[in-house]
Amino acid sequence: MTQLETYITENEGRFLEDLKSWLRIPSISTLPEHAVDIRRAAVYAVDQLKHIGFERAELIQTAGHPLVYGEWLKAPGKPTLLIYGHYDVQPVDPVELWNSPPFEPTVRGDNLYCRGACDDKGQTMLVLKALEALMMVNGTLPVNVKVLIEGEEEAGGESIEHYVNTYPERLQCDAAFICDTGIPAKDIPALIYGLRGIIYTEVEVRGAKRDLHSGEYGGVAPNPLHSLAIIIAGLKDAEGHIHVPGLYDKVRKPTAEELKFWHEDPLHINESLLEEMGVSQFTGESEYPPMERMWARPTLEVHGIIGGFVGEGAKTVIPAVGRAKISLRLPPDVKSEEAFTLFERRVKELAPAGVEVIVHKVHGGEGVMVLPDSPPIQAAAAALKETFGKEPIYIREGGSIPIAALFYEVLKAPVVLMGFGLPDDNLHSPNEKYSLTQFYRGIRTVASFLQKLA
Amino acid sequence: MTQLETYITENEGRFLEDLKSWLRIPSISTLPEHAVDIRRAAVYAVDQLKHIGFERAELIQTAGHPLVYGEWLKAPGKPTLLIYGHYDVQPVDPVELWNSPPFEPTVRGDNLYCRGACDDKGQTMLVLKALEALMMVNGTLPVNVKVLIEGEEEAGGESIEHYVNTYPERLQCDAAFICDTGIPAKDIPALIYGLRGIIYTEVEVRGAKRDLHSGEYGGVAPNPLHSLAIIIAGLKDAEGHIHVPGLYDKVRKPTAEELKFWHEDPLHINESLLEEMGVSQFTGESEYPPMERMWARPTLEVHGIIGGFVGEGAKTVIPAVGRAKISLRLPPDVKSEEAFTLFERRVKELAPAGVEVIVHKVHGGEGVMVLPDSPPIQAAAAALKETFGKEPIYIREGGSIPIAALFYEVLKAPVVLMGFGLPDDNLHSPNEKYSLTQFYRGIRTVASFLQKLA
Repeated sequence: MTQLETYITENEGRFLEDLKSWLRIPSISTLPEHAVDIRRAAVYAVDQLKHIGFERAELIQTAGHPLVYGEWLKAPGKPTLLIYGHYDVQPVDPVELWNSPPFEPTVRGDNLYCRGACDDKGQTMLVLKALEALMMVNGTLPVNVKVLIEGEEEAGGESIEHYVNTYPERLQCDAAFICDTGIPAKDIPALIYGLRGIIYTEVEVRGAKRDLHSGEYGGVAPNPLHSLAIIIAGLKDAEGHIHVPGLYDKVRKPTAEELKFWHEDPLHINESLLEEMGVSQFTGESEYPPMERMWARPTLEVHGIIGGFVGEGAKTVIPAVGRAKISLRLPPDVKSEEAFTLFERRVKELAPAGVEVIVHKVHGGEGVMVLPDSPPIQAAAAALKETFGKEPIYIREGGSIPIAALFYEVLKAPVVLMGFGLPDDNLHSPNEKYSLTQFYRGIRTVASFLQKLA
Repeated sequence: MTQLETYITENEGRFLEDLKSWLRIPSISTLPEHAVDIRRAAVYAVDQLKHIGFERAELIQTAGHPLVYGEWLKAPGKPTLLIYGHYDVQPVDPVELWNSPPFEPTVRGDNLYCRGACDDKGQTMLVLKALEALMMVNGTLPVNVKVLIEGEEEAGGESIEHYVNTYPERLQCDAAFICDTGIPAKDIPALIYGLRGIIYTEVEVRGAKRDLHSGEYGGVAPNPLHSLAIIIAGLKDAEGHIHVPGLYDKVRKPTAEELKFWHEDPLHINESLLEEMGVSQFTGESEYPPMERMWARPTLEVHGIIGGFVGEGAKTVIPAVGRAKISLRLPPDVKSEEAFTLFERRVKELAPAGVEVIVHKVHGGEGVMVLPDSPPIQAAAAALKETFGKEPIYIREGGSIPIAALFYEVLKAPVVLMGFGLPDDNLHSPNEKYSLTQFYRGIRTVASFLQKLA
């Protein structure tokens, strides 16, 4: 057993305890009442970096939540790796569906349940623990390292975007590493080469100046909720086709290799997906295989609607206002700004007479495609092969990590998208969890990756 | 000045104070946490009946909220009038839009602001005060009186429906009088000869077994909110046509007189409506005049939608469930049970593949048309002429008072629909109010009505 392996094995329990302490801080970035928690979670990460022995470890103030920055540049002649993570988490509602309190880390079987257990505190922590292990065993790191951890990934990521665009020279690197993705199954290592972008909006519809009685005015009054339904139904039909003119124009054609994988589905990903969702059939554009729909097609989803009376029983009101949160996921080449323009135009076009419609842009980010044959990605692949005992597969993901596109475009650095989440980790849902096997395997893989990168 | 007029004039202040005391009790029937208030409001009405000198004045227990019953039958040879009112009120949300607390009666100018000020505590109280004035001045009432006040009018009215159907002999009467309607403007007295029925539903749509991440599953997952939008948009188009096959089949043809009134609009009702709503145009079926749309056509309205993430900011969730409260208003001859069957069938037909849809019936009630030339209605007309100084007009209303149809059908009694609300009374909305002029004028009119009925 190598010294590194011995150190990791002996410290697994403490690594888990450190993660648990971090998870107990409810760092929900979208809810203003958690601003103090956000700061505590950031300071916790700084302390971790100091403990590892980083030269610099500090908070960077921003207009929003602070960034955590650390650097260790004492490996002259070696490449510099920029490591990204995020310490903020999603809201926890509906809280009644959690089997244990969302911010009380609870181990059941091989899994650690907590909001953020995977996304992305768990995955960020495993990277930090890999750095710690290398440093403690060798007194040094195999490569130069810059660490940048944000607190707004679940809230649009404006601050890190501003920072990267403003100070690209400070973040100069030979490669970027983002540990915020998953693998298709416990024993199938994967590297991500494509991600979708996103544009997140809120559509607000206003009718009469006040709520009205449906008996007195029903038949002549504008109903914002009905208008909202007409708009939403007009944006996407029951077969999953999005009716936003121009949106599909720039969708990149998949390669023959991709199409083969999606159609043949050698890993039985489709079966797992149905099981995870608890449904008997897929919805959406049936002329494309499910993986293409999720990974390479634009999609439009309604995340929430609110308006009128929603308490128990009946209230015969025609509400004055209704709101819906709607986002588009965008394949690479479909730019978020352009998609928003097309979307806004279409929403206004669909609005029935008699209501006022406002489309608010909440946030946006670009998709990305990286070249899998760059040396950093090959180093990651070799590390995965070592710890999983088999070659990784190369796949896309349907989610959005706008920072990947930003690093790629601004820093001109190859981006390694290697993570250890599993499809049933319930990201953004009740009972989010992380597999302890994956957590420990991740530590070993990342340590190996840094050594191979050297 | 008659003795009666003197009594009313001298007691106006106390009448108002009694109403205010009743209004302070937040008797919201749809919210379980107000069960105690409901009972207090009922007991308050019983005390009023005792104070007037009714032979019987009591609570009738029901499966839901209690009924208030009173009778005074000491006018042998005279007709018996069944008087109806309701002591329950609508919820108050959105509470932040109220200019004074919803359950603190506040006089500003000629208006008394409070939830229930008009609907229906204010209108019920004016009837009780008319009875009090007649009894105090004459030591007797001009006709036999049965009073039945319910506490579930805003919650479906199941208990009174059950009671009327079970004990029609106890409620036997020569006429029924419902004081729960309005008049088109302060100086235009009116009698209502038609009301719409209603069927109130909740449509529940279920997709995956849990909330899903829109990045991971967007493109293949069922989205209950999107399905709900497709259903709602399919039920009624942007031009107000309801696409529920069979719904329009039994709509009664208006009379030539009605059509003339609706098209000519001699009272400029349309203008007032636009002003009240704060909009520049009517919506709905433009091939029918606005009054026909509101009073004689079936209408479909969405009262509330809830589902997914509706907090501040963004959450990229595909929710597992979405719900909408939807009702239909039904002209007389379109029966509520039948309408529900047609509606439910259509909703299920419209549901996109991959979701489960349940249509809950919340409550229903029938519309009604009464014959304006019956003696009780003519007595009411004469009383209105006396206090307003002009002949009343005969109009329909778009709202629903299912008890009117029930009295008409079960008790075989002519139903007098005479009320004193004004179009800007904000029923069911923030800042509900009642005009003090109307309140006092109502007392005088009802006292006169009872005398003329004798």
